[in-house]
Amino acid sequence: MFEIKIKDFLGRIGVLDTPHGKIETPALLPVINPNRLLLPVSRMKEIGAEALITNAYIIYRTPHLRERAVDVGIHRLLGFDAPVMTDSGSYQLSVYGDIEVENEDIVQFQIEVGSDIIVPKDIPTPPFSPRDRAEKELMTTVRNVSEAWEMLAGLSNRPLLASPIQGSTYPDLREKCARMLRGMGDIFPIGAVVPLLENYRFKQIAEIILHSKMGTSTCTPIHLFGAGHPMILSFAVAFGCDLFDSAAYALFAKENRYLSPHGTYDLSSMEYLPCACPICSTHTAKELRESDERERLLAEHNLHTAFSEIRLIKESIREGTLIELVQQRCRAHPRLLDALKIALSHTDIIDELSPQRRSSPFYSGPESALMPEVRRHQKRLERLEVGKNCIIFTTHPASTHPELSLKDFDSVFILRAPFGPFPPELAETLPVNTVHVSGDLEAKHKALEGVVYLVKNNPDTLFTLVLDREWLDIAKQRLNGLDNVEVWGEENG
Amino acid sequence: MFEIKIKDFLGRIGVLDTPHGKIETPALLPVINPNRLLLPVSRMKEIGAEALITNAYIIYRTPHLRERAVDVGIHRLLGFDAPVMTDSGSYQLSVYGDIEVENEDIVQFQIEVGSDIIVPKDIPTPPFSPRDRAEKELMTTVRNVSEAWEMLAGLSNRPLLASPIQGSTYPDLREKCARMLRGMGDIFPIGAVVPLLENYRFKQIAEIILHSKMGTSTCTPIHLFGAGHPMILSFAVAFGCDLFDSAAYALFAKENRYLSPHGTYDLSSMEYLPCACPICSTHTAKELRESDERERLLAEHNLHTAFSEIRLIKESIREGTLIELVQQRCRAHPRLLDALKIALSHTDIIDELSPQRRSSPFYSGPESALMPEVRRHQKRLERLEVGKNCIIFTTHPASTHPELSLKDFDSVFILRAPFGPFPPELAETLPVNTVHVSGDLEAKHKALEGVVYLVKNNPDTLFTLVLDREWLDIAKQRLNGLDNVEVWGEENG
Repeated sequence: MFEIKIKDFLGRIGVLDTPHGKIETPALLPVINPNRLLLPVSRMKEIGAEALITNAYIIYRTPHLRERAVDVGIHRLLGFDAPVMTDSGSYQLSVYGDIEVENEDIVQFQIEVGSDIIVPKDIPTPPFSPRDRAEKELMTTVRNVSEAWEMLAGLSNRPLLASPIQGSTYPDLREKCARMLRGMGDIFPIGAVVPLLENYRFKQIAEIILHSKMGTSTCTPIHLFGAGHPMILSFAVAFGCDLFDSAAYALFAKENRYLSPHGTYDLSSMEYLPCACPICSTHTAKELRESDERERLLAEHNLHTAFSEIRLIKESIREGTLIELVQQRCRAHPRLLDALKIALSHTDIIDELSPQRRSSPFYSGPESALMPEVRRHQKRLERLEVGKNCIIFTTHPASTHPELSLKDFDSVFILRAPFGPFPPELAETLPVNTVHVSGDLEAKHKALEGVVYLVKNNPDTLFTLVLDREWLDIAKQRLNGLDNVEVWGEENG
Repeated sequence: MFEIKIKDFLGRIGVLDTPHGKIETPALLPVINPNRLLLPVSRMKEIGAEALITNAYIIYRTPHLRERAVDVGIHRLLGFDAPVMTDSGSYQLSVYGDIEVENEDIVQFQIEVGSDIIVPKDIPTPPFSPRDRAEKELMTTVRNVSEAWEMLAGLSNRPLLASPIQGSTYPDLREKCARMLRGMGDIFPIGAVVPLLENYRFKQIAEIILHSKMGTSTCTPIHLFGAGHPMILSFAVAFGCDLFDSAAYALFAKENRYLSPHGTYDLSSMEYLPCACPICSTHTAKELRESDERERLLAEHNLHTAFSEIRLIKESIREGTLIELVQQRCRAHPRLLDALKIALSHTDIIDELSPQRRSSPFYSGPESALMPEVRRHQKRLERLEVGKNCIIFTTHPASTHPELSLKDFDSVFILRAPFGPFPPELAETLPVNTVHVSGDLEAKHKALEGVVYLVKNNPDTLFTLVLDREWLDIAKQRLNGLDNVEVWGEENG
C-alpha cells in the first residue's frame, strides 16, 4: 500500500494507496473543521491539497453532521473526492481529559462514513508525564489499535489504519510502542508532539522521531501528528516522516500569525510580506491586515507557504540535497539547529537507512562533520595499504617543501575536512569531490580522526604530514603521543 | 536625495528621490530589452517593479527607437510612469571591446530622453585583469563620470548620476576609485562583477563590495550591477548594497533556468516547482516546461522569486535579523558561506557601520563568533571590576561543586559561547539574552578569549573557572601558562 520511489537521507518520496486514490508523500493534509470551513475545499485542492483530514469525533457528536455523514459519506459531506483521513478526537481528549465515545464506536463510525484513513481512540500522553502514566496509556493505545485492526480485517476496499505511536517524552517507550504496533496498521502517526512544537522543544521531537523510527518497519509511512509549520517540515522529512497535517494554517490565521519557513511573523507588526504566493504578491501587509477577508487570505497564504515547502522538499529529495535544505532551515532557530545535531548523533539508524549520496555534499557548518558519508569514507581507510612511507598533505608540498618528493613515498594521500585522507585517484569521486572550503574546527578534527586512525592502524609506517597553518595546532593536539608521524607545517618550509 | 530609514548590519531601508518619484531600497530593477519585451511593463509593475532599467545605447543605436525616445521620452517609450534608469552600453563594451559612442553623446542622449538615473560610459575591467590595465581604465571611468557630472550641473529637475566604481579584482583599486568618485554622483554602482557571479567567486565579490564601501560615503546608495539572483541578494544588502538590476530573470528564462534563493534549477529536469508564486502554484513543472508560454511564465516566476526575496530582506531589516537570514542563504553554496566569513573578517568597517542589535542574535554556526555584538560585548570586559576572587561558570556550581559558594567571591560571571563572561545582572540584556545552545568550537574559543582577557588584565585576581565537560579541553589549551586561574571541571566534582 506504500511504495517508496526515491530516498534521500532518511526522507523519501512515496505513494500511499487509499480507497479514494493515491497520496504522494511527503504530503501535508490540511485539517478541516467540519463546523467552520474557513476556505472552500475546492480552493484547498487548487492550493495543493491531495488529501484532507477532518475530525470524526466532532462529526459524531454533532447530530446534523453525523446524520449527513452516515447518509452521504464523508467525501460528499466535505465535497472532496480525494482521500480523507479522519481523526478520533485525540486532540479533544488531550484538552478535555476524556471524550464521550468508545474506541469501537468511533472506529465503526469512521468505517461507516467511508473514511480512507482511520485513527482509533489513542491516548495522547503529554510530554514530560510520569513514566508509569506514559506506559499505562501506551498500552491502552495499543489495545485500541489492535481492536480497530481486527474490525478492519476482511473489509472489502478496506480503509487504512493509522496506528498512533505514543510514549510521551520517553524515547525507549516510543520505540517500544512502535515495536508493539508492528504489523497492526498501515500508517504510524507519532502522537502528542504539538506541545513540544509550540515550545520549540525540537531536541525532544528529534529523539521521539528517531526512536519511533527505530521501532517501525522501514517501509511504512510515518505521520507526524500536528506538525504543519513549514519551518519544521524539511527536518521531519529528512528524519523519516512522510505525512503531516496542518490545523496551523487556520489556527494561526485566526491569531493573525503568518507562517513562513523562516519562522512565524505577527501580521499586525509586518510591513512587507516575504512570500511570492498569490496573496502576498498582490497585497501589502497593510492591505492584508485591513482586509475584511483577512483571516481567509492569511489562511490561504499559510497553506501556500506550506505546500511550496513540501514541493521544495520533494525536489530536494530528487536532487539528493535534502539534508542541505535542512541545514538551511534549521538556521531559523538555534534550538532547531541543536536538534539537528542531536538527530545526527543517531549514527546507527542513519547509517543503516540513508542511501549513498547521489550528489556532492555541501559544507554548511559543524554538523557537516556528522554526516554519514564522512563516516563511510573513513571506514574505507581500513582497507587501504600504505606501505612503509606515507605522505598526507592538505596542499601539494611542491611549492612549500620542495625537498619532499612524492616519488619517495609508498603512498600518497590528500587531506580534506571533514572527510580525512584519501588517495588522489579518488579526488573526483563522491563524496570528496565536493566544493572545498576551509571548513571549521569540527571539520578539521573529524578529518584528523581519519589520520589518527591510519597512523595507529599502521604502526610500522612512517607518516609525513604536510599541513597548512590553520591545521597545525589541532594536528599537534590530535597526534600527541604518536611517534610514527612527523608534521611539516609552514614553519619548516 | 537618499534618505536612510532603518539600518541593520550594513543593510538599510532607504528612499531614493528621482524626477519620476521615489524608489524604496533595497530595490531590484528589472532590465528591459527595448527590442524584445518578454513581459509587458504593466505586468512587471504588478509583480513588484518600482523602477526599471533599460539600455540607452541600444536605443541610441536603433533608429526607430531612438527617434521615438527623443520624441516622447523614455517613459512613454516603455509605457512606464515610475523611475527609469538607463545604462550606457557598458555590457556591450565588455562583450564587444568597444562601443561606437562617445561619453558626452550617450550622456546627452540620456538627458534628452528624460532618464531618471544616468550612467556615463564606464569601462568594465574584467576580473583578474593586469593591474595596470585596471588602473588605466579606472581613470577613464572617473574622467567620464566627471564629465557627466558637469553636464548635469544646473539642469532643472536634474536626473541622478550613477557613478560606477571599477578596479577589477583589486580591492585597493576599488576603494581608490570609490574615493575619487566621492561627491560626483548620486548612486555608486559596483561594476563588472557579473563574471565573478557566474563563476561563484563570492569571496572576490565580498572583498570588492566591502572595499568599495570603505571608499564611499556611508549615506550614498550602492548599486551592485548585474546581481539579480535571489541567492546573493541578502548577502549583498547585508554588506551595504541598496540597488540591484536583474537581466537574469529573462536571460535565465531563455535558457530554461529557474531561479530560487536556494540556487538555480534546470527546468528541464525538475519535477516539482519549489515556490509559492502564482505561476508555480498553478503549474506543475511538466506543464510549465511544455507550455507555449514557457519563457514568459518562467521569467515571471524568476521575477516573483526575486521580489519576494527583496520583501523578505526588508522585513528582516525591520526585525533586525538580516544577518541571520544571510547565514541561512549562504548555506545555498559553500563558496557563499566562505565569502560570508571573509566579509565578516572586515571588522573595522562592520564595527563602524553596523548599529547596535535590536534583537537577540541567533547562533547559526562558526561565523556567529565573528559578529560585531560579540566583539562589543568583550570590549565591555575592560571596564569591569573583578576584585580579589572571581568565579566564572558555565553552569551554576551549586549542584556539581557544592563546596563552592558564590558568596565567597568578590565577583561572579556566567560564561556563554560565543560572548564570553558576563555578570549575572546582564543576563537579561542584549546580546547575551539569546537562546543558549551548546554552540561549536569556534564559539567556545571566542568565549574563552574573553576569559583570557579578564585573567591577564587582572593579574592580582584569583579566577575560579567552573566548566562543563565539553569546555575543558579547549579551556586548558587557551589558559595554558596563566597561573592566576584554577579550572574546575566535572572530574573535580
